[in-house]
Amino acid sequence: MIDTIKHVAITGGTHGNELTGVHLIKHWSKCPEEVDRNSFATELHLTNPKANQEVRRYIDQDLNRQFNARDLKNPDLNGYEQQRAKSLNALLGPKEDPRVDFILDLHTTTANMGMSLIFNTDDPLVVGMAFYIKQKMPEAKLFFNPCDRMKDNFLTSLGRLNGFLIEVGPIAQGLLNYEVYSDTHTAVMHALDYLELRNTGQAIDLPTQMDGYQFIEKISLPEDSEGEITAMIHPNLQNKDYEEIKPGDPLFITLSGETIPYDGDAAVYGAFINEAAYYDQNVGLSFMEKISINLMNDSPL
Amino acid sequence: MIDTIKHVAITGGTHGNELTGVHLIKHWSKCPEEVDRNSFATELHLTNPKANQEVRRYIDQDLNRQFNARDLKNPDLNGYEQQRAKSLNALLGPKEDPRVDFILDLHTTTANMGMSLIFNTDDPLVVGMAFYIKQKMPEAKLFFNPCDRMKDNFLTSLGRLNGFLIEVGPIAQGLLNYEVYSDTHTAVMHALDYLELRNTGQAIDLPTQMDGYQFIEKISLPEDSEGEITAMIHPNLQNKDYEEIKPGDPLFITLSGETIPYDGDAAVYGAFINEAAYYDQNVGLSFMEKISINLMNDSPL
Repeated sequence: MIDTIKHVAITGGTHGNELTGVHLIKHWSKCPEEVDRNSFATELHLTNPKANQEVRRYIDQDLNRQFNARDLKNPDLNGYEQQRAKSLNALLGPKEDPRVDFILDLHTTTANMGMSLIFNTDDPLVVGMAFYIKQKMPEAKLFFNPCDRMKDNFLTSLGRLNGFLIEVGPIAQGLLNYEVYSDTHTAVMHALDYLELRNTGQAIDLPTQMDGYQFIEKISLPEDSEGEITAMIHPNLQNKDYEEIKPGDPLFITLSGETIPYDGDAAVYGAFINEAAYYDQNVGLSFMEKISINLMNDSPL
Repeated sequence: MIDTIKHVAITGGTHGNELTGVHLIKHWSKCPEEVDRNSFATELHLTNPKANQEVRRYIDQDLNRQFNARDLKNPDLNGYEQQRAKSLNALLGPKEDPRVDFILDLHTTTANMGMSLIFNTDDPLVVGMAFYIKQKMPEAKLFFNPCDRMKDNFLTSLGRLNGFLIEVGPIAQGLLNYEVYSDTHTAVMHALDYLELRNTGQAIDLPTQMDGYQFIEKISLPEDSEGEITAMIHPNLQNKDYEEIKPGDPLFITLSGETIPYDGDAAVYGAFINEAAYYDQNVGLSFMEKISINLMNDSPL
């Protein structure tokens, strides 16, 4: 449990071709009153400028996989994003004793994930933020991905409290869409309002439990012996993120048009279905399980 | 007018992150019977392998703007795509007296363009192909862009007859979508069937006129004095490709949420609305006019 939130960082462009966060950060830099709150300071950072310049997810490696405490200390990791991670650790961290209390990192996806709130800790302040935003935006989905903060490789794990990704889709890489931009803007406003309410000791009426989803595994696209993909997401599954996939349901369709069903024994839920960024590893989707997320009791700040 | 079609090339990956054409070419390389016809030879080419490897539109410059006859002869144009253009000119052309009669180039767009058939000549064989495909796929749109073949900078202008782009959307860059893949496959089958019917002198019942669209101009996204975009496509316009834009209709919305209307005097039609590839030049959409396209009389081959 954390006493109070004094320093909040909002970060965008961690993946350089996800322009929504980039332009929100630029917008707020010109209109800081939108992200100012009385009880804490808000800072704004574009985290991967070179990848953003080239409108690519990354230059050398995915920046949002570089924040494991051990990797941050490894001087042999010298790629562009590995160096960016060390710079960001100096700016926002250090990971072992961070200056910044909380990081909100803004992402988009080509998958039909709607408004997805991704958080990696069961800390009641963070779970409460997810619940609060979902109260205001009931269509939001809670994507709970518990991970020890020191081992977590997301940028958000640089904060004193393991923070929060706002992931909105579907949107192609390299462009802006007003609906995605506006929804992301709204979610950030709610997140900051929530922190302000917490900091100032105001009552927040939240449920003790909400439905969410937890990652099981990544599922690869079928490929041939040369590593070339031989199938794509089945049209019945496209855009069906967070819906149930039952044994026997169509999963993929080959380039020749043959359906490949899900051959597992238990129903799962899909997420990141047909995310372009995952084609570099021939990943087609993630399997998730539906869970109940509990908001643990904590005394108000 | 051309006597007969003996050599057809189907090309994909001209923009390296448009994977539909890439995987159709790979598929047909393994299943050539799908593109074989009796009266002509079909060849398959991946035209921009390095950009495809890196899942980028291009390495140095847009390959599909490099086929002007003068540029093909300019030894000072040495970028990767400028060199690819010269190689393709040797493979398929030369432009002044091409070996290949007809090129079908496969593209996708992030805009909601559906099945768009783009052709740059009023030659009745080519217009007839567009009409034939639209008869079979009534949702297809005809995008007529007349251009002298020697000055044309599209890859398709390397063919003896200025050929044909099949442009399908919306789809994000860097991924496959079964519907887009399947529609592109179907359109290519119709195109090849049409050439077979023409070559073998069979009667093809086509109308003499169909509606289409002709390019007027590209419209820039609003930008500030530093060249940063300050607005995006208005939500009322998003996905409304080929629909009418009247004076006063919302065109853009600023990052702060203010609407910018269309201030022209005459109604136009939009196309390539929010195409990610055009953000490199801050282009938001194209204005088109609606036209009637005539199929000129020609004697059957």
